[in-house]
Amino acid sequence: MSANTFGKIFQLTSFGESHGPAIGGVITGCPSGLNLNLDEIQKELDRRKPGQSNIVTQRKEEDSVIFYSGIFENKSTGAPIGFVINNKDQKSKDYSHIKDNYRPSHADMVYDKKYGHRDYRGGGRSSARETASRVVAGAIAKQFLKSTSFTAFVSQVGDISIDNKFDKYNFDEIEKNIVRCPDPKVAKKMESHIKQVRKEGDTIGGIVTCVIKNIPVGIGEPVFDKLHAKLGQAMLSINAVKGFEFGSGFKGAKMKGSEHNDLFNPDGSTKTNYSGGIQGGISNGMDIYFNVAFKPVSTIMKPQETINNKGDKVDILGKGRHDPCVVPRAVPIVEAMAALVIADFVLINRTVKK
Amino acid sequence: MSANTFGKIFQLTSFGESHGPAIGGVITGCPSGLNLNLDEIQKELDRRKPGQSNIVTQRKEEDSVIFYSGIFENKSTGAPIGFVINNKDQKSKDYSHIKDNYRPSHADMVYDKKYGHRDYRGGGRSSARETASRVVAGAIAKQFLKSTSFTAFVSQVGDISIDNKFDKYNFDEIEKNIVRCPDPKVAKKMESHIKQVRKEGDTIGGIVTCVIKNIPVGIGEPVFDKLHAKLGQAMLSINAVKGFEFGSGFKGAKMKGSEHNDLFNPDGSTKTNYSGGIQGGISNGMDIYFNVAFKPVSTIMKPQETINNKGDKVDILGKGRHDPCVVPRAVPIVEAMAALVIADFVLINRTVKK
Amino acid sequence: MSANTFGKIFQLTSFGESHGPAIGGVITGCPSGLNLNLDEIQKELDRRKPGQSNIVTQRKEEDSVIFYSGIFENKSTGAPIGFVINNKDQKSKDYSHIKDNYRPSHADMVYDKKYGHRDYRGGGRSSARETASRVVAGAIAKQFLKSTSFTAFVSQVGDISIDNKFDKYNFDEIEKNIVRCPDPKVAKKMESHIKQVRKEGDTIGGIVTCVIKNIPVGIGEPVFDKLHAKLGQAMLSINAVKGFEFGSGFKGAKMKGSEHNDLFNPDGSTKTNYSGGIQGGISNGMDIYFNVAFKPVSTIMKPQETINNKGDKVDILGKGRHDPCVVPRAVPIVEAMAALVIADFVLINRTVKK
Amino acid sequence: MSANTFGKIFQLTSFGESHGPAIGGVITGCPSGLNLNLDEIQKELDRRKPGQSNIVTQRKEEDSVIFYSGIFENKSTGAPIGFVINNKDQKSKDYSHIKDNYRPSHADMVYDKKYGHRDYRGGGRSSARETASRVVAGAIAKQFLKSTSFTAFVSQVGDISIDNKFDKYNFDEIEKNIVRCPDPKVAKKMESHIKQVRKEGDTIGGIVTCVIKNIPVGIGEPVFDKLHAKLGQAMLSINAVKGFEFGSGFKGAKMKGSEHNDLFNPDGSTKTNYSGGIQGGISNGMDIYFNVAFKPVSTIMKPQETINNKGDKVDILGKGRHDPCVVPRAVPIVEAMAALVIADFVLINRTVKK
Repeated sequence: MSANTFGKIFQLTSFGESHGPAIGGVITGCPSGLNLNLDEIQKELDRRKPGQSNIVTQRKEEDSVIFYSGIFENKSTGAPIGFVINNKDQKSKDYSHIKDNYRPSHADMVYDKKYGHRDYRGGGRSSARETASRVVAGAIAKQFLKSTSFTAFVSQVGDISIDNKFDKYNFDEIEKNIVRCPDPKVAKKMESHIKQVRKEGDTIGGIVTCVIKNIPVGIGEPVFDKLHAKLGQAMLSINAVKGFEFGSGFKGAKMKGSEHNDLFNPDGSTKTNYSGGIQGGISNGMDIYFNVAFKPVSTIMKPQETINNKGDKVDILGKGRHDPCVVPRAVPIVEAMAALVIADFVLINRTVKK
Repeated sequence: MSANTFGKIFQLTSFGESHGPAIGGVITGCPSGLNLNLDEIQKELDRRKPGQSNIVTQRKEEDSVIFYSGIFENKSTGAPIGFVINNKDQKSKDYSHIKDNYRPSHADMVYDKKYGHRDYRGGGRSSARETASRVVAGAIAKQFLKSTSFTAFVSQVGDISIDNKFDKYNFDEIEKNIVRCPDPKVAKKMESHIKQVRKEGDTIGGIVTCVIKNIPVGIGEPVFDKLHAKLGQAMLSINAVKGFEFGSGFKGAKMKGSEHNDLFNPDGSTKTNYSGGIQGGISNGMDIYFNVAFKPVSTIMKPQETINNKGDKVDILGKGRHDPCVVPRAVPIVEAMAALVIADFVLINRTVKK
Repeated sequence: MSANTFGKIFQLTSFGESHGPAIGGVITGCPSGLNLNLDEIQKELDRRKPGQSNIVTQRKEEDSVIFYSGIFENKSTGAPIGFVINNKDQKSKDYSHIKDNYRPSHADMVYDKKYGHRDYRGGGRSSARETASRVVAGAIAKQFLKSTSFTAFVSQVGDISIDNKFDKYNFDEIEKNIVRCPDPKVAKKMESHIKQVRKEGDTIGGIVTCVIKNIPVGIGEPVFDKLHAKLGQAMLSINAVKGFEFGSGFKGAKMKGSEHNDLFNPDGSTKTNYSGGIQGGISNGMDIYFNVAFKPVSTIMKPQETINNKGDKVDILGKGRHDPCVVPRAVPIVEAMAALVIADFVLINRTVKK
Repeated sequence: MSANTFGKIFQLTSFGESHGPAIGGVITGCPSGLNLNLDEIQKELDRRKPGQSNIVTQRKEEDSVIFYSGIFENKSTGAPIGFVINNKDQKSKDYSHIKDNYRPSHADMVYDKKYGHRDYRGGGRSSARETASRVVAGAIAKQFLKSTSFTAFVSQVGDISIDNKFDKYNFDEIEKNIVRCPDPKVAKKMESHIKQVRKEGDTIGGIVTCVIKNIPVGIGEPVFDKLHAKLGQAMLSINAVKGFEFGSGFKGAKMKGSEHNDLFNPDGSTKTNYSGGIQGGISNGMDIYFNVAFKPVSTIMKPQETINNKGDKVDILGKGRHDPCVVPRAVPIVEAMAALVIADFVLINRTVKK
């Protein structure tokens, strides 16, 4: 598995399966001399953790991060930051129902074919549990990028979506509801919908929107690592993501140039922001915003017909406690990946001029 | 500019500005022993070239590729393949109207701020002319991937889109019309619309859909280089792209798990294909399909107010011959980038098992 | 610190300081399906560990490796292998004598200047303790490369060196003496010399020779990652190394082409092997052999004049238990790094032909 | 061939075979805003070119570099710098004597086995002609590193070597003799020796020493990309190199710690410089110096017995005009590779602190 490292200078290398003894990672290229608030890192992890509310999976995982290196006297030393998050009770589970079976729309079959040897305990490496390491690294990236803000929120659950543009909302509302939607009324509807879906033994998809504010002009590396291209890769690498759009996005395909062009103000800002804060792959100083589409979780509490690894038909029924809707817990993951992308580019940008 | 190389094993390193003497690239990691049909490579370039029909830019560029290395007796030797495409008449143009001005929704301002020294002749490095090098490399990747097919087409122009799923169309129709749409009737409407928009001095966005068939199970590298994540980066790195979705895409956000799950047939294929041929970042053997949204071209033939590099208001009017709609010429670029992604992953996949 | 990852496909990412809670690493790209003998990995670590004989440092460190991921039912799964080696008693030490002082020929001063924030507990990240992670990864690489043998040994300590070519020795003798020299008589002399030097409170340099047998033709990646170039980087990245030569090495500079050319036998082997098993950066199937020169350990038990971080003159005296000669314990490290280089190239070599 | 790119930020990607139409490369990551003196670049190429004196190969190659991109109004723009050096008369040669034969100590056999398809015209990609691209990129790196000097010279030819330490010589003497030795008397002896060897139809090895002055403290990236480790890789990647040592080098293996330790002066400089300007992989501000050992050129004008690609014995006799001793022409290549290593590390070093 050759792609467990993300970033060029500010890098996360991640390891761990859902049901092994621990997951963790190594952050390299984090600049030295950063004052690191370890409580804030843990808080980000807590935003992602299972069991945090009654609309997410009720698994109990503490998810507390232990740092092994690279931090001394509460400061980054420039050395690699090794960390581990222990998995709890990983041994007691019963996986006999999935050991030989390929769950529909899971990675079971493709892992088996690709690697020939599958860790069948839960999702193994394909589990979203791996994203906890990303949240740790992203939390450190955020502390490096003090003046830039990363705010993700749920903008759609199934058919229910918020109406307005992001700049109409008070972002302080986001963490006040368990859906993490900036519109309290819509949040209520989403919450009811998720509960209803769960009652049916089903799951539902959704959209997370992310807004990056106060990013300097000049971030992003043409031609292949355009800022939005790396943001896109980062988001699409999160489990269950099916789509990414920034600025005008798919709506831009319907627009005319005379509508879409963002005319300049004398100070270099633009009157509109269909560009989503990015021109030619480089930040232009305006707010960056993008949408990330998540499919419904594949594990449902309804019987499904599937096959085993011999190609025989078998029936399968989801076990355990799974998320009926992944987007509320995906919010901190989206922010973390965004922060990792920007941190890397901010460092690379120090090298582009004489 | 640190990101002019794409791929890990099968790599393209690209160079060149729109109005310098030449553009080109170096392909490394192309396996040795490939019979290379140079005419087919040129044909792919011809699909991208300006002036090929009356709905694209009327600039005349020959775009013929010259290979300098890595090919001997019509076979790849394993050595890097260096190539150049000369730019024609690059010296005679007049750029005085853009030298000090920042065109709206172009990369002029951000390049100037990022690099401090701007090549103001046309788009310089930010021009889509750079994608010709991608088409050359992609054409070689296609010849390496003989048994896999890459078919892109225009599925939307402005508000006009095709109705059906891709598997309802005869792909032989695509190259028979100048829009490159598989539905001849819709193609006619799109063509008229593009002509109308051009007459208004305006431009229009669109969507390119790409279908990859006959790809083996197991391609893609979790967790950061999931197959769709690298396809996403690849597509988003193409000029003017605003969004990427695969399989169910943004529609997946509205679906329930019980609808969205792709149930297996006994042979490992799936009854539906909302997954878009990819599970957990790895190909599952089903058709891969994705949509790429393009914004309208920024250069319009209408006067616009903008600023110069001192922040003064100035008026600007598009000069020269530009595309009213970029999607017909984007088709071969989308295919090329897809082929580069797959070629790289096919080679990496040789390393994953004992 | 941007360079804590070694390798392109088979990669080690390493973390940890000498006196933090733990060191460790993540191995990615290890092929799936390998039967891993964890005891053999621990044995390699034991060959490197302090306190193993009376001519090495008498520090007591258990150095037992804990694996967190990537291994399931004693087989590699293809997922990243995360591991940790806990440091013992790391908190009890007193570092007041080096906190503000720059020890001569140590990395204290340069780390302080480069990073601005120094972990002054022992060598921090610059300590050779970090090489334990390399030994773990190298031990796994060796198990992947079952048919290839990696044998390093001490060929010189100070002025005492073995006389013969490596192929005259019985490699079984190497681990029978504490110096790890294949000539038992010379080993005795080296042992006495090291003890004498230690008695003087001094240290002494030496040379480790490494021989790689049964390596297939075709390993190594021109032009920048020639096999010997990556072996050279690998060896020079080990603490205290000052030089690397392979085949004829520095003696080759004195030779004539007619002497140095290795004439072929009809089977493709060569009559002589001045090339050291490598032609044009690619293995030719003959034994690969190279020498690695180590300087004397900088920490000596004699008073030395030095400066502190304000530039004031201060006296310093080595404390603790340090190696009088580093080469006996360097033997497994040299083998480990060689195995990492070869494992990576063996995997990459699977990608070079159609 | 997956390793034709050198560097992480300041990168050279090289292409081209000895007898194809052209060689060349792409330099990415060169900072924008550099005033580039193209004549100085050509001068560096002229120092490497064949036919420059009567002790090197008498082949006539113009070796003039053509830049295609990345330079505008004599300044680097930040965009990739694509360049080409045309090969002259590459078609007229007769290679029938080597087409099926494997020349002793050449890369013919290993290329054939590794790639299965060999460009048998001269050395193809394994030819030292490829190093011309390195000289171009190194010349640009030197212009970026204005305040740092890179001086290489010949310190040994066969058994003839200079006696003194490098700081006893006047470096202005180096380019005054055709051997490029700073001691004019020794240069004369070397010159005679090379001529004698050539008369015998033979070749001779030698050593190039390189001195880097005025390099700031802090350059180099532990733990795997230590400054000397990347210098080592860089030098060992040059054709015909067999060994690399820096500072005390192999002599350091014979020394005691009390001798070898470089004691500090109050200003942070050191009284001695056995460290060779590098501590723990990081520059300490003192002069960096290292030796690079070159084997004798393999092509000799004497008949040799060898085999063809069927394993039959055949006789072979060197044809054409080859270097009797490679070190005089290797001097600019060593400097170029050193400059590439340092340029890359200087840029990376901008990212290590908050």
